[in-house]
Amino acid sequence: MKTNLDCFPCFLRQALDAARMVTQDERIQRKTLDGVLSILLNVSVYLNPVEIAHLVHQRVKSITGDDDPYKEEKKKQNESALRYESTLSSEIAEMSDPLKAAMMLSAAGNAIDLAPERPIPDIYKEYMEMIGKGFAWDDYELLLKRLNRSKSLLYLGDNAGEIVWDKILIEELLDRFNIEIIYTVRGSPILNDVTMEDAHFVGMDKVVEVISNGFDAPGTLLNKCSGEFLKKYEESDLILSKGQGNYESLSEENHPIFFLLNVKCPVIAKEIHCDIGDIILKFQSNSKREMN
Amino acid sequence: MKTNLDCFPCFLRQALDAARMVTQDERIQRKTLDGVLSILLNVSVYLNPVEIAHLVHQRVKSITGDDDPYKEEKKKQNESALRYESTLSSEIAEMSDPLKAAMMLSAAGNAIDLAPERPIPDIYKEYMEMIGKGFAWDDYELLLKRLNRSKSLLYLGDNAGEIVWDKILIEELLDRFNIEIIYTVRGSPILNDVTMEDAHFVGMDKVVEVISNGFDAPGTLLNKCSGEFLKKYEESDLILSKGQGNYESLSEENHPIFFLLNVKCPVIAKEIHCDIGDIILKFQSNSKREMN
Repeated sequence: MKTNLDCFPCFLRQALDAARMVTQDERIQRKTLDGVLSILLNVSVYLNPVEIAHLVHQRVKSITGDDDPYKEEKKKQNESALRYESTLSSEIAEMSDPLKAAMMLSAAGNAIDLAPERPIPDIYKEYMEMIGKGFAWDDYELLLKRLNRSKSLLYLGDNAGEIVWDKILIEELLDRFNIEIIYTVRGSPILNDVTMEDAHFVGMDKVVEVISNGFDAPGTLLNKCSGEFLKKYEESDLILSKGQGNYESLSEENHPIFFLLNVKCPVIAKEIHCDIGDIILKFQSNSKREMN
Repeated sequence: MKTNLDCFPCFLRQALDAARMVTQDERIQRKTLDGVLSILLNVSVYLNPVEIAHLVHQRVKSITGDDDPYKEEKKKQNESALRYESTLSSEIAEMSDPLKAAMMLSAAGNAIDLAPERPIPDIYKEYMEMIGKGFAWDDYELLLKRLNRSKSLLYLGDNAGEIVWDKILIEELLDRFNIEIIYTVRGSPILNDVTMEDAHFVGMDKVVEVISNGFDAPGTLLNKCSGEFLKKYEESDLILSKGQGNYESLSEENHPIFFLLNVKCPVIAKEIHCDIGDIILKFQSNSKREMN
C-alpha cells in the first residue's frame, strides 16, 4: 500500500522512541530526529510505509550506533509471553473451535503490550474479550477450505512476544491439517520484530522449520528478500501473514495470502474499512476469485 | 517552557490537520508537510513550543494560501457552545460553589470537543464528571485570597467554543468581586484560538472589555505582543491564563499568574506532574512566596 501523509508524524514518533531505547542523551535524540526529518523531506510517498520505515530505522541505527535498540524490550516481551503460554494454550484447547480461537489469540497478541509489570489477569481478560468479540473481517471459512487442499503454508511472523501465540496457533494447525509449515523471521533486528534469535528463544524451531526473509524491514519487501525466502514464498500453497507491517508491504501482491492482524492505526483502519482495535482475518482480495 | 522532542511529531500532525482543513489536494498537503519538516530540521529547541508552533503555522498559512484554516471549525465550536450556554449557566448557579464550578467548567471546556454531531447529554455528562472529579492541582483558595485584594484581572483567552464557558466564569467573578476584568484574544487567526471576531460572536464584549494581544501565536509571546496588551499585562493585579499554549509561553514568567487548563499532552502532564485529562488551577510558583 501507498504511504499516507498520516504516517509521517508516526515515523518521527517511532524514531524518537527507538533513540530513547538506546540513550538518555538528548543531543543524540535530537540528532536522530534531524536525520529522520531529512529522510522524510526527501522521500517519495510512492514508496510503501515499510520501505520508508526501513530507511528511517537504518538512520536511527547509524546515528545511535546501536543495531538493535529494542533488544531488551523484545526479551521482556518473549519472557512475559512464555510465562502465560501453557495456561493460554490450555484455555484455547477447551474452546469450541480451538483453531479459530488460537487464530484470534494470535491476532489479539498483535496489539497487546506484554510489559511484565501488567497483572496477568488483566492481560487474560483483554485477550478473552477480543476472542469473544471475534474477527471484524472474517475469512476463516475460506481459510479452512484452502487449508484442506494445501500441502504447504508459509507463516510470516511479526513481533516478539506474540511469536508465542503464533506457536500456539501453529500447533493447532499441525494438529488438524496434514500440512508443512515454515515460519519466517526478519533478516536482522528492526523495531520489536522477530529474528532467528527470538524464534530460538521461544522454541519455535522445535515446532516447525524457521527461515529468515533476509532483510531488516518491518514487513516483507519482496524485492529485498533473500532467494531462499522467495523460493518458499513462490512455492507455498498458502501464506499466512501476521501484523500490519506485512500487510502494508504485501497488500497489493497477487498471491494467496491470508492477513491476520490487529488494526492499530487510522491509516490501516481506513484501508481495511475497519476500526482501530479490531482483529482481522482477511484473504488477499486480488486473488479472491480463484478461491470461491 | 522549553520545547520537548515529543512536540516534534505533534507539530507535524498539527500542520497536516491544518492543511486538510483548507484543501483535499494531497500535493499541497505534502508541500505543507515538507515546509514544516524544513522548519523542524533547523529550529532551536531553546525556543518554547509556542514560538515553534507560530513558525509552523505561518508556513502552513503561506503554503496553503489560507490565513484562517480553522475558520469554519471555530464557528461550529462557538455555535455549539452558545446552544448550551443558558442550561450550563443555570446548572452552575445551583451548585454549592458556583464560582469554583464555573472555573472547573471553563477548564473542562478546554478539552472537550464541541462538534455539533455529539449528543448534548454526552457533553453535559463529561463536563459534570470533570467538575465532580475536581482540580488535580487546586490553588483555588489562594486565588480567592488574591481576588479579594485585587482591583484588576487580565483574562488570557484560549480557544473558540470554550470562550463561552470563559464568559460564564467571568460573570461569576463579576457577581462576587469588585474587580475590573479584561479579556484578551489573539491578534489574528491561529489554530482554533479566539480572535476579536469570536469574542464579538459570543458576546464577550458585552460582558467585559476585550483587547487583542497583537500577535498570532497559539499562546502569549510577551516579546511579540502589542504595547497596549503589555501595558495591561504589567498593570493588572492578577492574571488568569487559560489553556496549554498560554502556559507553555508564560510558565517561566515572574508574575502573579493563575493557570487554568486541561492537561492534554504527555509533555505538559510531565511538566506539571499531573495526568492527561486532569483539570488544573495552578498559581505561578515563581512568585508563590509573595502570596502566602
